[in-house]
Amino acid sequence: MRHFVIAYGLAVVLPAVLALLMLGFDAGTATGPVPTPSVGVGRQQQVPATPLLLFSITVVVALAHLGGAVLRRLGQPRVIGEMAAGIVLGPSLLGAVWPEAYRVLFPGAVMPYLNLLAQFGLAFFMFLVGLELRGDLLRGRGRIALLCGQASVAIPFALGVALALLIYAPLAAAPVGFPVFALFVGAALSVTAFPVLARILLERGLFHTPTGALTITCAAIADVTAWLLLAVAITMARGSSPAEALRTLGLTAAFAAVMVGVVRPLLARLLRRGLSQEATLPVVIVGLLVSGLLTELIGIHLIFGAFLFGVLFPRDGDVRLRRVRERTQDFTTSFLLPPFFAFVGLNTQIGLLGQEATRWGWCLLILAVAVAGKIGGVAAAATPLGVPWRESARLGVLMNCRGVTELVILSIGLGLGIITQALFTMLVIVALVSTAATAPLLESLDRRDARRDRKAGETAEARVRRSA
Amino acid sequence: MRHFVIAYGLAVVLPAVLALLMLGFDAGTATGPVPTPSVGVGRQQQVPATPLLLFSITVVVALAHLGGAVLRRLGQPRVIGEMAAGIVLGPSLLGAVWPEAYRVLFPGAVMPYLNLLAQFGLAFFMFLVGLELRGDLLRGRGRIALLCGQASVAIPFALGVALALLIYAPLAAAPVGFPVFALFVGAALSVTAFPVLARILLERGLFHTPTGALTITCAAIADVTAWLLLAVAITMARGSSPAEALRTLGLTAAFAAVMVGVVRPLLARLLRRGLSQEATLPVVIVGLLVSGLLTELIGIHLIFGAFLFGVLFPRDGDVRLRRVRERTQDFTTSFLLPPFFAFVGLNTQIGLLGQEATRWGWCLLILAVAVAGKIGGVAAAATPLGVPWRESARLGVLMNCRGVTELVILSIGLGLGIITQALFTMLVIVALVSTAATAPLLESLDRRDARRDRKAGETAEARVRRSA
Repeated sequence: MRHFVIAYGLAVVLPAVLALLMLGFDAGTATGPVPTPSVGVGRQQQVPATPLLLFSITVVVALAHLGGAVLRRLGQPRVIGEMAAGIVLGPSLLGAVWPEAYRVLFPGAVMPYLNLLAQFGLAFFMFLVGLELRGDLLRGRGRIALLCGQASVAIPFALGVALALLIYAPLAAAPVGFPVFALFVGAALSVTAFPVLARILLERGLFHTPTGALTITCAAIADVTAWLLLAVAITMARGSSPAEALRTLGLTAAFAAVMVGVVRPLLARLLRRGLSQEATLPVVIVGLLVSGLLTELIGIHLIFGAFLFGVLFPRDGDVRLRRVRERTQDFTTSFLLPPFFAFVGLNTQIGLLGQEATRWGWCLLILAVAVAGKIGGVAAAATPLGVPWRESARLGVLMNCRGVTELVILSIGLGLGIITQALFTMLVIVALVSTAATAPLLESLDRRDARRDRKAGETAEARVRRSA
Repeated sequence: MRHFVIAYGLAVVLPAVLALLMLGFDAGTATGPVPTPSVGVGRQQQVPATPLLLFSITVVVALAHLGGAVLRRLGQPRVIGEMAAGIVLGPSLLGAVWPEAYRVLFPGAVMPYLNLLAQFGLAFFMFLVGLELRGDLLRGRGRIALLCGQASVAIPFALGVALALLIYAPLAAAPVGFPVFALFVGAALSVTAFPVLARILLERGLFHTPTGALTITCAAIADVTAWLLLAVAITMARGSSPAEALRTLGLTAAFAAVMVGVVRPLLARLLRRGLSQEATLPVVIVGLLVSGLLTELIGIHLIFGAFLFGVLFPRDGDVRLRRVRERTQDFTTSFLLPPFFAFVGLNTQIGLLGQEATRWGWCLLILAVAVAGKIGGVAAAATPLGVPWRESARLGVLMNCRGVTELVILSIGLGLGIITQALFTMLVIVALVSTAATAPLLESLDRRDARRDRKAGETAEARVRRSA
């Protein structure tokens, strides 16, 4: 552990010292006013020097891993540390305590570059999420999973829409209509972090238990439903007229039909005919990017195409597929996702909440609604279906994990101008807290059940002794 | 093969059609004047929309793979097709025959983004080159390898300096002094494509033969020597005074000492202590980027630090190392190097040569000197050392392969303003031709040797018959 920290420390501190050299080296960009990072990429900005760019991105990557490693040591999923690293680098922490370093590291002109890498990270991440979706998961307790999955979206969504009534006036971005805002807040509260969930289940040895299978199937159903809701929200936010929205939906349906009817069989044949090992990864990369670009052009978002390409990528127990997944996954996690986390972090301004005490109140309210909606919704659906209370409690806690998926949705909402930076910050906090709460909540459930079992055991023992 | 082409074709043609949609979508950037791409990143430019950027890069990646796949089918190394794809997309071909598409695909504002990805590609590529260097290769015919390796640099270098006398007046960039220019041209002619060479040897089943071992060791020695020459050239080009140049050399030596004396043992201990599987790739990525940044700050170039990190990365037959290499390699080749090839291609303007007939003459002269220097130099050193003529001819032909390594050097020279775009274009042509010539030349040597063997056999047979 010590060497770990030393090695990582060197990787961060050494360049930080050298940054002082850079202050002179790139004074033009560095001494400008503190930039307010914005998602839009249409601004006229000075192009920064390449070493400065490489430096920013290296720090972003290094800190994400440092955060991940520390959280891993604390028994939490790495991803929480990776997400937190982005916030640490942003205006919330680094920008507040050491604004000079923040200005050197992230001049406004760095943002479009971080954004580009973040978009690649999102596309690869969503492809991997799609790749995890497997039809065979839906067998077994299919009906329970279907109902719980839908309930775990429907109830948080309904609560989200209700919440939107309250927060529309104080927290919506200026020109956004209520329907789009409500749809977006509903979708944002009803999402579940499918891949983080899978990792938590694997780490706790729950993946191949009945609870694990039920959870992962529920989460898959919930995620697909939430994505559909988001697609509608995006269409409404972008389309200026109902006709335009209809056109987008029609194009989306046509795109999905072509992907399933033409691209999937073509890919399957390509893989069966023996696509060479070295050509497989290129085909995957080009495929997911083209697919993502098409959905972007249709008017929904990059992530849908990349996700769909992952869902329909043929998986017949092929060694080649496993290798593609492993290689894509490592590189995505290690290199492409950290810029996304930084991008989210640079847009998260916790200082915005400090300005008004009521905002912290709103933040707590949103968190409470989000958690209650997920845990309560799942339990309300699972208990009548005969799922034992212990299992449905665990299911609810697990589905409450929002992780990266939530950040994906939030960054889209911010980019489209549906939510303000203040609401974005609140929802990022909700995502972090609800993800970080998953492991401790599961442990407290374990402890409680163990205590009850012990008590029940003692009672049974006493009963046996009495009857003896 | 057919499905291959169809799939790739779709990946390129489909977005090209959709580009027409983009014309309207991003008219602001697209309808500007034809940009003359430049290496400098200090210009004020309009930031392009993210989908347009993703689109450009997707086309770059797709075409590189298409080129690689086609060349692979023709029995050539993929890398030639990947290099050629960059030129096809540049002003030499696409820009000449379909300027509208070229303008949509590569507005001037895309260049800094391509440059950033290209820099990452270079850093990862050089790390992998360093990782291929293995001390045990230097055993065996060490003396022959050492002498041939040095000769294969010294003779092309001397010829390059002589050539510089001729071309300095017509082809050097305006403010560059003759010593820097001569040093650079010498280094550019004496480089060998170590990784492409390793791939060619593997593909032809020569890697584990005595010729293969001799070649790869020679190439390793030649490459390290050529890098040192290049480092001196860069230092001279950047440093305004001898004192500054000395400072850079001193810092470089100190850096190398710290890397070998401190970082290498630390890494070895980290790996022995059981750095977790998922933390290894992050450590590699952060390490190579930090190391590259430090050499950049010292005043040489990014590539040296990344290369050195690869050289000293501990390799004790670890499975983990192999996995890191495989994963880094696939992703680098498939995703990070294509932008580098595009960057080179966008700066290659074959049209510049067509304007003056004498320039084609210069280009042919440079090619002749480059090829003669390598093949002649190696043969001149190897033959007196007792290497059979057949083997030394093969050695010379193999060492003449310049591949990506040449492009790396050229892009640095262009970036530092040592060479003009016209000379850059000529040297890119030299790199392409000498790399593409390797496989056919080897085959013609094989055929000639087989013919001679047959003749010798017949003569021997006739002699036997006569004496019988």
